[in-house]
Amino acid sequence: MTLRHFLSTQDWSRADLDALLDQAAAFKRSKAGRQLEGKSIALLFFNPSMRTRTSFELGAFQLGGHAVVLAPGKDAWPIEFDVGSVMDGETEEHVAEVARVLSRYVDLIAVRAFPKFQDWSIDRQDRVIHAFAKYATVPVINMETITHPCQELAHIQALQERFGRDLHGKKYVLTWTYHPRPLNTAVANSALQIATRYGMDVTLLCPTPEYVLDSRYMDFARANVAENGGSLTISHDPQSAYRGAHVVYAKSWGALPYFGRWADEKPIRDAHKHFIVDEAKMALTDHGVFSHCLPLRRNVKATDAVMDSPACIAIDEAENRLHVQKAVMAALVS
Amino acid sequence: MTLRHFLSTQDWSRADLDALLDQAAAFKRSKAGRQLEGKSIALLFFNPSMRTRTSFELGAFQLGGHAVVLAPGKDAWPIEFDVGSVMDGETEEHVAEVARVLSRYVDLIAVRAFPKFQDWSIDRQDRVIHAFAKYATVPVINMETITHPCQELAHIQALQERFGRDLHGKKYVLTWTYHPRPLNTAVANSALQIATRYGMDVTLLCPTPEYVLDSRYMDFARANVAENGGSLTISHDPQSAYRGAHVVYAKSWGALPYFGRWADEKPIRDAHKHFIVDEAKMALTDHGVFSHCLPLRRNVKATDAVMDSPACIAIDEAENRLHVQKAVMAALVS
Amino acid sequence: MTLRHFLSTQDWSRADLDALLDQAAAFKRSKAGRQLEGKSIALLFFNPSMRTRTSFELGAFQLGGHAVVLAPGKDAWPIEFDVGSVMDGETEEHVAEVARVLSRYVDLIAVRAFPKFQDWSIDRQDRVIHAFAKYATVPVINMETITHPCQELAHIQALQERFGRDLHGKKYVLTWTYHPRPLNTAVANSALQIATRYGMDVTLLCPTPEYVLDSRYMDFARANVAENGGSLTISHDPQSAYRGAHVVYAKSWGALPYFGRWADEKPIRDAHKHFIVDEAKMALTDHGVFSHCLPLRRNVKATDAVMDSPACIAIDEAENRLHVQKAVMAALVS
Repeated sequence: MTLRHFLSTQDWSRADLDALLDQAAAFKRSKAGRQLEGKSIALLFFNPSMRTRTSFELGAFQLGGHAVVLAPGKDAWPIEFDVGSVMDGETEEHVAEVARVLSRYVDLIAVRAFPKFQDWSIDRQDRVIHAFAKYATVPVINMETITHPCQELAHIQALQERFGRDLHGKKYVLTWTYHPRPLNTAVANSALQIATRYGMDVTLLCPTPEYVLDSRYMDFARANVAENGGSLTISHDPQSAYRGAHVVYAKSWGALPYFGRWADEKPIRDAHKHFIVDEAKMALTDHGVFSHCLPLRRNVKATDAVMDSPACIAIDEAENRLHVQKAVMAALVS
Repeated sequence: MTLRHFLSTQDWSRADLDALLDQAAAFKRSKAGRQLEGKSIALLFFNPSMRTRTSFELGAFQLGGHAVVLAPGKDAWPIEFDVGSVMDGETEEHVAEVARVLSRYVDLIAVRAFPKFQDWSIDRQDRVIHAFAKYATVPVINMETITHPCQELAHIQALQERFGRDLHGKKYVLTWTYHPRPLNTAVANSALQIATRYGMDVTLLCPTPEYVLDSRYMDFARANVAENGGSLTISHDPQSAYRGAHVVYAKSWGALPYFGRWADEKPIRDAHKHFIVDEAKMALTDHGVFSHCLPLRRNVKATDAVMDSPACIAIDEAENRLHVQKAVMAALVS
Repeated sequence: MTLRHFLSTQDWSRADLDALLDQAAAFKRSKAGRQLEGKSIALLFFNPSMRTRTSFELGAFQLGGHAVVLAPGKDAWPIEFDVGSVMDGETEEHVAEVARVLSRYVDLIAVRAFPKFQDWSIDRQDRVIHAFAKYATVPVINMETITHPCQELAHIQALQERFGRDLHGKKYVLTWTYHPRPLNTAVANSALQIATRYGMDVTLLCPTPEYVLDSRYMDFARANVAENGGSLTISHDPQSAYRGAHVVYAKSWGALPYFGRWADEKPIRDAHKHFIVDEAKMALTDHGVFSHCLPLRRNVKATDAVMDSPACIAIDEAENRLHVQKAVMAALVS
């Protein structure tokens, strides 16, 4: 049997994803389970985390298992990812050994590894998690690299809780928002993937054509539309994009052509602070809900009024991280 | 039913505190319990910890639960506490979201957040923990902010183990001691509160009137004396303060009028190194016991001879942290 | 009954060590146990860790217990180890208090504390762990200081899995390898101890006589040979040392005479990069196996070809850390 990882929702069938969401809903009704009884998961954080760490650690506990949290380069040894390199620099051990040894200890390995933001042609290879998937002999889970599949499931669960199981015909706006620094495109890539996967009419709203996402994810989205119905539109005009929307999902990200020369991107970014999600824009929607993966800078990405309104489902989505990740862990060890 | 937090012992009745101490004594006799079966607590450390972290983490485990340890700004995102602020600085998310999301994951939230030592008028608002208490939908526990209520209970338990349940008539000295840096007044505030709450004759011994504690805690102490008997005296003379004492509790703290201009306080502090707890002073007591919340700098705050004497109950008090905190957690989730 | 620690395999009889290895083999066949039911261990890391942390934490979990991970000076208070010192410097509390308090909370204390690399005459006293053993009232486990006894057991278990229980007559080469920095001699000391303890014919292969290990460990090795058979040889010639070997165990370490003046050692170190374990040298062995404690810098300490060959048992040895440590913990609390 082939080793099954959870690296991207695109690798999983709709039936598989639906089964995960059903199990997540069951865990939301009743949190305890024995699916990880005596089992364990290593959580490798190359970047900070609050929700991901807490929800995975508690999810393992609630299913009878145990999570070991490791921060390579901080409390654990720095890791080499290049194949064949003469390791006379800063790294102390190769991912081959890390993945193989952890596979002897634990039943699952989860990895958070953000891009380096210097060269997108390198970052888009997503080498860290693929290296773990290559060398590990246990399933590997993506806790956010250049996509964030656990967030995708939590997001869809939150939408289904509001709109019912079938999301076809819902107008979905993925909007870029301002943040003082250029951020990871992971959640934006993920939103594009999963919203088209579930057949919604998706608008990617961003400041300029340079903020359109990587062709890999645009192509996934188009293929998803072809398979599942719905549509995909690119817009640079907030007013028309918000009009009639049922879902507004916000995320800030850095424009891909500016990787490694972010000073040049800053003026464009700074000129689009008005992309903030506010009450005026939300008023254009069709009683639309608002969400964000969190952390969110209030009054920069979205206003207090939006965050504190009944339309905001970001806390529900964050809660669902716990439930969907328990479903993923349970599925991978079964 | 109103959400019940454990922010200060002053919010809890004497009957409630006595019930916690009874439960703590029961846990000391038999450590295992199922009061947190399948439940969880988030431990948020904005400052370092050894005893607090270990005792809460083990306490949760011994009651069937699980503690998640988070260090915001280190392994988790930095948090904003101001209401309405435009978050374009260093903080990545607002306490409103942190508290709300954690409340979906865990059954209890515990917070350690020391003062900033720049402006006492701000620090005395104790904003971090009050923000968590405001936004959380689960009980919040104070793991030391500008008071340290868990330490208070552990301290009283240790005194009751030596002197019996009724502490009336015991002469209690809270003495300032030297430390090279100005420290938090939290444990001093707490000692003043709890010693008067349990009806002891309390002397606050400190170098000068400027080291007297904040009026809020002096007022609490006076109100406690009015309600519970005992007395409150301020002294700047070690010899008379120690004479006949049954309890000597030491703590170093910075003088409130010097917040933010500590260089000016240093000469006063340095001139009072002789406040160290030593055998000569302890010999003035009536077979008095000595304690301290730990960590303690030996031969600076107290001598080796005192620390290693049978009179020292600091280790017992530290042990009791485990028992009282289990009692607090059990009470809050029941 | 005397308190029993696990500080060095030299303190334990061969029968005791064999019993630990039997229990480790049993745990390898069946991982679950209740030997630590409701019990706990504090893991104190003064230095980074991946395998040690993960294997101890999971080992405690698999036996029904719980491990608390502490990093003094990082997430916990910095600790003083000198007796009688006036603590007016950086340290906030004395090991006397840390060890006594932890002993009230947990059933076992494990310590990782590497040398400071400034003065071997100080480092060789191994003061940190001995201070914990002095003040603790629960058993103390060495997670690597200037020896690494848990690694020793894992190593022997891996060798017995390949060669059977009796290792007499096996030719064992402990070879120095290059690393850009001078490293701890702990694993080298340990390899010397345990290989002679199990009666093998041991060759210590190192660049020059200055890389010979501390006399304490050389003396232990000679005493072990006298008691258990086998032999001990020092060599500076890779070709003759490898010839006919059954086991090649590699480790890099700093030469003891150069402690505190490492710039002077660098040219010698740099001149011996050819000590790398490669296929040509392994071809000289008698179908020898290769191992290393990890982390290992590929193509610096050993080549990719050796690491990825069937002769490499480093991953097995790393896995065995879990099993032997569970055996040690179970033995110490029973």
